Amino acid sequence: MYIGVDLGGTNIKVGVFDAELNLLGKNSKTTQADMGPKIVVERIAEAVNELANQHGTGLEAVKAVGIGAPGPSDISVGLIVAAPNLPLFRNVPLRDMLSKELNKPVVFENDANAACWGEFVCGAGKGVEDMVFFTLGTGIGGGVVSNGKLVHGFHDGAAELGHIIIYPDGRVCGCGQRGCAEAYASASSTGRRATEMIAVGRKSSLKAVFDEKGEVTSRDVFEHYARRDELAKEIAEDTAKALGLLCINVLHVTEPQRIVFSGGMIAAGDLLLSRIQYYFDKYIWTLKKEAVDICFATLGEDAGIRGAAALAKEQP
Amino acid sequence: MYIGVDLGGTNIKVGVFDAELNLLGKNSKTTQADMGPKIVVERIAEAVNELANQHGTGLEAVKAVGIGAPGPSDISVGLIVAAPNLPLFRNVPLRDMLSKELNKPVVFENDANAACWGEFVCGAGKGVEDMVFFTLGTGIGGGVVSNGKLVHGFHDGAAELGHIIIYPDGRVCGCGQRGCAEAYASASSTGRRATEMIAVGRKSSLKAVFDEKGEVTSRDVFEHYARRDELAKEIAEDTAKALGLLCINVLHVTEPQRIVFSGGMIAAGDLLLSRIQYYFDKYIWTLKKEAVDICFATLGEDAGIRGAAALAKEQP
Repeated sequence: MYIGVDLGGTNIKVGVFDAELNLLGKNSKTTQADMGPKIVVERIAEAVNELANQHGTGLEAVKAVGIGAPGPSDISVGLIVAAPNLPLFRNVPLRDMLSKELNKPVVFENDANAACWGEFVCGAGKGVEDMVFFTLGTGIGGGVVSNGKLVHGFHDGAAELGHIIIYPDGRVCGCGQRGCAEAYASASSTGRRATEMIAVGRKSSLKAVFDEKGEVTSRDVFEHYARRDELAKEIAEDTAKALGLLCINVLHVTEPQRIVFSGGMIAAGDLLLSRIQYYFDKYIWTLKKEAVDICFATLGEDAGIRGAAALAKEQP
Repeated sequence: MYIGVDLGGTNIKVGVFDAELNLLGKNSKTTQADMGPKIVVERIAEAVNELANQHGTGLEAVKAVGIGAPGPSDISVGLIVAAPNLPLFRNVPLRDMLSKELNKPVVFENDANAACWGEFVCGAGKGVEDMVFFTLGTGIGGGVVSNGKLVHGFHDGAAELGHIIIYPDGRVCGCGQRGCAEAYASASSTGRRATEMIAVGRKSSLKAVFDEKGEVTSRDVFEHYARRDELAKEIAEDTAKALGLLCINVLHVTEPQRIVFSGGMIAAGDLLLSRIQYYFDKYIWTLKKEAVDICFATLGEDAGIRGAAALAKEQP
């Protein structure tokens, strides 16, 4: 059996898989990040132990554990350098701490790469060699698979795809740059751009949502777009345009066969996907026809634990 | 011995190398592209034969030949699909034609990748594993090395780095897109932007150049920038800004350790390099410090033949 762990700021998700990477069962716990790394590692180990006992004969049957964790991280040594959602985690050797706690080999990866690898191995990227992966959530995370391998870059800083600059001198991004794709097209930014427009007096059916909740989410934007609200349409189209441009820009770097979108915002469904495809087609060159397949992820919340387990299985 | 060939629209360049890839000698011929593929292949073979005779005992001592050729191409089968500078070359199986003509194994690569590989193996990229390479000429060509390997992409369309969109809805590019880096920052575009400004009446010391030659080149722009002409400064700064943004965008995809600029425009020297670095530093995120080294190529015109020879040597 293999274990996949997805460590988030709020929850620890754990899955147990057989040798063919079929999911046998899942478990989750709150992270309790404010208790610090030692307690969090113990909680991960607890979750793993419980799951291994439920679906087998305990840890004995577990060959290896994979974990995806927020970063920036130093992947080759399994270290969380810092993590906005885990404020007490500074240079934490998570891989070795967990390996010691469980007495098992542990493979470490950053969370977006782990989810990317899950989709690549057994989700929307199955059967291809070159894939680009986006998560549309609070930010825009990414993963790049080239020649069948994750691209890590010089200091594990590759695939920060949300920080590709789409509009130079544009909106301020949390990273310190201006005009990042993330500042326009993450789920949070999409909601925020709508909120800003309402705040300056734009008429919209989203106004009622704002008055009730004090904010507008990307979900609201796409719902009201579907009901033909003009402001919602404008905001959603700008999001789709930024994502279409993002697809073009990554295409010209690694030419993936498939570009996979995941994360909360893909709940907007065909409306979102068809508009991304529209802007991709509108802005892509005419020099030759591009065959890249732009699609949604298929594993949902399980991509991270699947990818982590797959990495555990592949370790030499 | 190994042979490296760089096939261009105007010239065929050939180099002969020993087993340690030291350059023993060079040869060149006009391409005569308008005579068609068969004649061009014969001319390449002639150039190779002459060189092999001058620096050894003829073809017998040659183990393999590498060739870099303009594209789009299908690299795995050694086919030039089409090439703007070689208008008669449509679906030409160059690798097999040359291999038959010389009776030697031939390795095929696109020209920008071959030059990138030359710099990677024995030029500005020596000693790193992850590199991005730009050529600043008529267009902006590119190469991406990740984990020590050239990134080809799904259909050999990776590393079209000049067509990363920097300014959406911006200047029209020859490729059919708008706002490509190439439309601002290639050598040709830099000269063209200056010419356009003079044509609409902007005052500049470049006006005299324009009146004499009917055009302004990127070389003129950087020369007049050095002599403090305001328009030349503006144009050159816009070029450097586009290149700085381009560096940021590729950094966020593959995180190279080194970004290497080559091509005619690097004759502008430190003035160009320091301004690219300035804009990179100005627009890059503050989330963490980036250690990427932005520098110029060191092999000049020999990068293509060196890379092609290196690929010939590495072939299985």
